[in-house]
Parts: sequence; structure tokens; C-alpha cells
Amino acid sequence: MHIHPTKYYSFRGVIVSVNTLYSDPYFSVFPNERIHPNTQRGLLNAYHCCGSETTPSAVIFCEANFTKTDGKTANGLIRYSPKFRILSVIDSEKAGLDSGYALDGEYNGIPIYATLTESIEMAREIPEYFIFGIAPSSGVLSTLDRQVILEAIDLGMNIVNGLHEYLNDDPEFIAASRKAGVVILDIRKPRAKRNLQIFSGIVNHVDCPKVVIMGTDCAIGKRTTATKLVSALRQYGLNVVLVATGQTGVIQGAPYSLVMDSIPAQFCPGELEAVIYRAYEVEKPDIIIIEGQGALSHPAFSTSSMIIRGSAPNAVILQHAPCRKYRVDFDEMAMPSVASEIELIELFAHAKVIGISINHEGMEEKEIDECIYHYSKEFAIPVTDALKRSSKFLVHMVLRAFPKLAKQIPILQ
Amino acid sequence: MHIHPTKYYSFRGVIVSVNTLYSDPYFSVFPNERIHPNTQRGLLNAYHCCGSETTPSAVIFCEANFTKTDGKTANGLIRYSPKFRILSVIDSEKAGLDSGYALDGEYNGIPIYATLTESIEMAREIPEYFIFGIAPSSGVLSTLDRQVILEAIDLGMNIVNGLHEYLNDDPEFIAASRKAGVVILDIRKPRAKRNLQIFSGIVNHVDCPKVVIMGTDCAIGKRTTATKLVSALRQYGLNVVLVATGQTGVIQGAPYSLVMDSIPAQFCPGELEAVIYRAYEVEKPDIIIIEGQGALSHPAFSTSSMIIRGSAPNAVILQHAPCRKYRVDFDEMAMPSVASEIELIELFAHAKVIGISINHEGMEEKEIDECIYHYSKEFAIPVTDALKRSSKFLVHMVLRAFPKLAKQIPILQ
Repeated sequence: MHIHPTKYYSFRGVIVSVNTLYSDPYFSVFPNERIHPNTQRGLLNAYHCCGSETTPSAVIFCEANFTKTDGKTANGLIRYSPKFRILSVIDSEKAGLDSGYALDGEYNGIPIYATLTESIEMAREIPEYFIFGIAPSSGVLSTLDRQVILEAIDLGMNIVNGLHEYLNDDPEFIAASRKAGVVILDIRKPRAKRNLQIFSGIVNHVDCPKVVIMGTDCAIGKRTTATKLVSALRQYGLNVVLVATGQTGVIQGAPYSLVMDSIPAQFCPGELEAVIYRAYEVEKPDIIIIEGQGALSHPAFSTSSMIIRGSAPNAVILQHAPCRKYRVDFDEMAMPSVASEIELIELFAHAKVIGISINHEGMEEKEIDECIYHYSKEFAIPVTDALKRSSKFLVHMVLRAFPKLAKQIPILQ
Repeated sequence: MHIHPTKYYSFRGVIVSVNTLYSDPYFSVFPNERIHPNTQRGLLNAYHCCGSETTPSAVIFCEANFTKTDGKTANGLIRYSPKFRILSVIDSEKAGLDSGYALDGEYNGIPIYATLTESIEMAREIPEYFIFGIAPSSGVLSTLDRQVILEAIDLGMNIVNGLHEYLNDDPEFIAASRKAGVVILDIRKPRAKRNLQIFSGIVNHVDCPKVVIMGTDCAIGKRTTATKLVSALRQYGLNVVLVATGQTGVIQGAPYSLVMDSIPAQFCPGELEAVIYRAYEVEKPDIIIIEGQGALSHPAFSTSSMIIRGSAPNAVILQHAPCRKYRVDFDEMAMPSVASEIELIELFAHAKVIGISINHEGMEEKEIDECIYHYSKEFAIPVTDALKRSSKFLVHMVLRAFPKLAKQIPILQ
């Protein structure tokens, strides 16, 4: 198959590029059905059709970084990846371990292998997708990274790339993918400039609650809390839309999503607004949950300011790690206090922080209880640990802030 | 001359693209000397050499928009354009008028013509540069716009384009510019992804005051106030760096500058920090003045949040238009109050608002006086009108906030 990486296709009157699907809510970013590599039509179907049962297989490359901060995308996908059947993780430093055990102490049956070759041999099939699961702090592919990706392409695997560096802009990768007839998905690549939208204010016409999950730092658990909350609210029968704003959420298949930090600043609020409004129109949700990024107070990662402007939230849930002293990757940057972050968020967003979810890193079970008690008293709002406590506490935060929602839940009447 | 629009050149070990020079502080964006169109070396010299006396000639295309909000770039260049000898403005609706008179009621001797042809005939020379001076709210070139730019290229003019749409990405413009041997400068185009920088905190090691000019809206006079302040401080003998953050400032030739709103959000604070730190190292300034964008409270244009994070300012001057009821282009969006904007800025920036500069649109002379008196009492800080009052009041704001600076000025001792 010869797919030109920058070729455009028309779908429902909208011109789309097969390698720039980060946020188009008309269809999910990832296929629900298997790609038939011999036909271009198969590829298009893969994006446009939903409901098929065959989940494509994938391996996640996370050399030297699985379970670590820079392996965030791989870690997230190992915990939750409804759009892919993950066959294995590649990380020579942890080869031989079960990935679930290595990550969270719970077996999941997905092994870690040392090399791509070993991974394919053991799977007895060539996985359909090779997911590059590292977010190197340099932001740039190493020579080894390039070699492995090219090897995967030569083997006929489609590539999922969440880096700021777009492989579809690189002549070597373009040539290799054409030759092998595979597709490279640059998850972070924004829509074409002509299609990017300026904020118009239409998000203010969404009349269901919009809740943003903010944090006091990056890599602190915002997405995990959002996922838990969404899942719990759905169990109560509510129609919930999750809007993902980072590359991991997009790869996990959130149908209404975009990668905020790679969009030119001018268009960030407008692009998010457009995704939220489309979700509102199409899904008629009872509530929309939006994933934040970094922290409003974080000098390096403050795309949350754009997320607040683009979503105009009615409420905020704050994720905090009480034992974290310095921001991740910034040894000289002290963590903000919960109180100062709440004050800043509430003034900036014109919305209340309705609950706190703590990240228990470095904490004993007893300390978690004490912390929940202490914060609840200090801030007079519900506090929980999204991973260690029942998700009902997260649901409680939301229903307490929006009592009308509770009336829509039969079991609570 | 055959200049490949995306060709890269090495300079002082840094790889630069001739069409992506928005923020590289090693050299100004615009040439101080004439480009010799027959040699590539001439082109490179044009970027790398400083101090030559010959200022290149230019016409500004601003059809149907000169003096209006969407003609902001043209308006700004007519008021101040040290890097270009502006021969005329093209706007058929105002043809026959003097551009200075049409804009500010003061003759400047630069005529407005109806067409490019007329403009060239009257100048008796083909200008070296064609500056596209409109910022259409659609953000996209019309068919007429395209025709005129192609006509200018065919005539051998280099193009200055400040739109988000990059002409160097458009096959028709690439072909035309190659054929004519001219250069298209896409002012908004960020550096190559590999060279974009994440915020590191190095800006906190700048030990001279950094003052950001913020506003309560866009198109309200931030750049004008910044320019007036810088010029006045220089008259007192201080070494001042102005960091421009919008396309007009870059076209005006601010040597330390970048166009913030077109940079992917992740890199905005880091790129600004890098420009500021470079200016600090190279120029050893007494003070750095940074142009803000939009307003911190503006849902559509809040790149100021990134500007604050990237510059870590020691103080802020706030620009406000007391008679403006709604934000420009947003009829349903009420202007914020000065008090609410100050509260938000001070909490977000951890810096004090040290003065207010008012934009007198819609105000009589007497009202300006009353407003200055009223705001001075309410906020207990100096207030002025940067255009209608002496620039000494702006200097006073800064010296009052940073008394040490006053000691460096012999005339004040």
C-alpha cells in the first residue's frame, strides 16, 4: 500500500489528513477494526467505522524508562488501553518481568522483553502497531530510537508517535513508511493551520456541568483521577464525556480529545472549545470532565491556563501529592501549597475547587487517612485518594457540587 | 537567485533557516543593509551584518483596513519602522490621503495609493519589500490577497508576511518566489521544533528589573506604551532592552523578540525565557521591558499567561481603555475592571502592578485628567496616558518602583 503521509481525504465534507487526527471528534483517533494493509480503503475505514470487535495488536517501546516518569505514556497504556491489544513492552532493563507487576504490583499477563525481535518471536505475530512510549526530556529521538522505529516500519508495523518531533516531517521516515506501506500517526500534530479555531465563546452555551481536573504539578495523577471519575459516574448511569488534553489520553482513544501543548498558543482555547462544544452537541452528555495539564502555577507547564480559558469550567477538582517537595524534573522549584493553588485557580477560572484528590506517593496508609482528614477540615470540601479509596468519594464531590445531577440517577432517588 | 525557501544555513555553529528568523537574538530579523538579489551571500550578509546605513524600501499592503483594528501591523509600522523606508501604503478606500494624517491627524509624507501598480509608478522604483499589513480576522488570505502577493513576487519584491498562514509552506508561493529569486519572510514561523526550548528557570538569574506591559484587552496600546517607555528611559541614559512578543514588534526590528502566539504552547515560556536571558547576557541592560499580548483575563487571547511565566517579571504596567465597553471583536464579552485585572495579575505573576497607562479612545481631554486623578487615588500608584502626557510620567513609574535605577542616572543625582 502506498499511502502518502500528507495526503488529504474528504469525509462528511471535512478534509482530513490521515496523519493528523488528534482532535477530530467526528471519528476516534484509532481504529476499532483491523487495518487491511493492502487497501487504502481499509485504512480509511479504520478511522471512520466504529463498533467492530477486533482490537489491533501493539507493542510499546519504552527502553530504559518503563515505570519511570519519562515512560508516562507507556505506564498509562499498560493501565488502560481500550483501543489496543498490548502484546508486550520493550525495555531491556526490566526484561523478564510482568509489566503490571513492575508498574503497580499486580500481574496483568503482559510481559516485558529486551528487544523488538524477542517481542515478535514470543508473540508469534508481527504486531500491527509499534507505540513509541517514551517522552524523552530532550524531546528528541536518539539514534537508537530512530533505528528501532525504522526496524518496526520495515517489519510492516504502523507507528504511533506521541513526540513533538513529527516523523511524517522526516524524509527518512517518510521514505521508509512509503516503502513498507505503513502509516505513521503523529499524535501531537495539530490540525492544518487553516482549520485551527480562535476562541469564540460558544463553550458558554454548553449547559451541562464542565469539570476540569487540575493539579499542583505535572505527572501527578490528573488523568488517572479523571478516568476513575468518568468510569464511576458512568456506573451510576450518567452520560459522561471525557475530554483528554494530552498524548496519552489520545492514544487511549478518548474520542473527544486534543494534544493541547503542541497547538500554537493563539489557537489553544479555541481548539479546546471546539472539541467540547462538538462533544456537547453530539453526545448530549450529563457532564463533561476535562483533563488538565501541568499546573496553573507551573512556570514550565502552564497549558492549564489555556485549558481553563477554553473550557470555562463550572468546577475544578485538584490533584496534589502531599509528600512531593519539588516539581518533577525541576529540583529547585518547590511545590506550591494546596491553599495557594486553590486561591490562584479560583480567581483565574471564576470557578470553585469542589474537591481534592491526593497522590499517595511516599505515604503510608495511615498518613493517607490523616491527610484526608486534615485537608477536609482545612478546605471544607471532600478529599479522597482516587487510587486507594472508593470511587464513590469522587462521585460524591461532583454530586455535592451539582445536586441536579443526583436527581438524574434513579438509584439515588 | 535561487534560494530554496526551506534551506538551512550554519551561522556561529547554529543552524538557521533563512525564512525562520523570528527570535534569534544573534542577529536582527531584518537587514540593515540592502539585499543583493544576485548572490546568496548577499542574503546571508543581510541577516548577519549590522550597522550599515542603507535602509531597505517597502510598501505596506493594507487594502480596506488601514487605520482599522485589522490593520494593526500597518498602523504600527506607519508610526515606527526603523528597519524599513516605507514608500507608501496600499488601500483603495483611503487612496489620496497622507497615511500619517489618516491615522493620527499628523502629516508624515507617506502617501496612500489604490493599487500596487500605482504605488510603484509614483515611487519610480520597485520597493525591495512588500509587507502584508493586514491581520484578517479569518486568519486566511483571500483570493485577492494571494493575487497581489504573487504580483509583488513577480515584480521582484521580497515578501514580509505576519500571518499564521506561512507562505513558505504553499507550493504556489514557493514556486513563484523561486522563479523570481525573492525571499518570503514568514515572521510568525517559530524556530524548528528541535531548537524550541522548555522553560528551565534561567530567567530567574537575570538580575536587572524585568517589567511586563500588560493590558485589559488586545489592541489597546501595550506596544505603544512599551515603545514610549523604552525611548524615554534611553533618553535618561539607561541601557534598555525591549522584548517584543508580537509580529508588529518583530517587523519593527526589535532585535530580541519572538511571536509568542504561533509557538506550540509547551515551548512558549521557554522560548521567551531564552530570548530574555540572551538579551541580558549580550546587552548587560539596566532594565528589560517586555510587551504583553491580549489580557490575562481574556478567554481568546491569553498568551500573557505564558509571557508572565516565561519572563518572571518584577513589576507590571497595566494598559487600560476606560471607555471601551466590550473586548475588541467580541461584542458579548464585557471589559474587565482595572481592579479585577490587577488582582488577577498580582496573584498570577507574584509581582506588583506599579502603574497604569490609559488609552484615551472616546475620551475628551478633561476626562483624561479626571481619570488619571481617580485611578491614582483608587490604586495608589502613578497613572498616565502614554500618548497624551509626557513620557516622564512613565519613567517616574519605573524609577519609583526601582529606586536603585534612579541612582544610575547622573542627571537625577
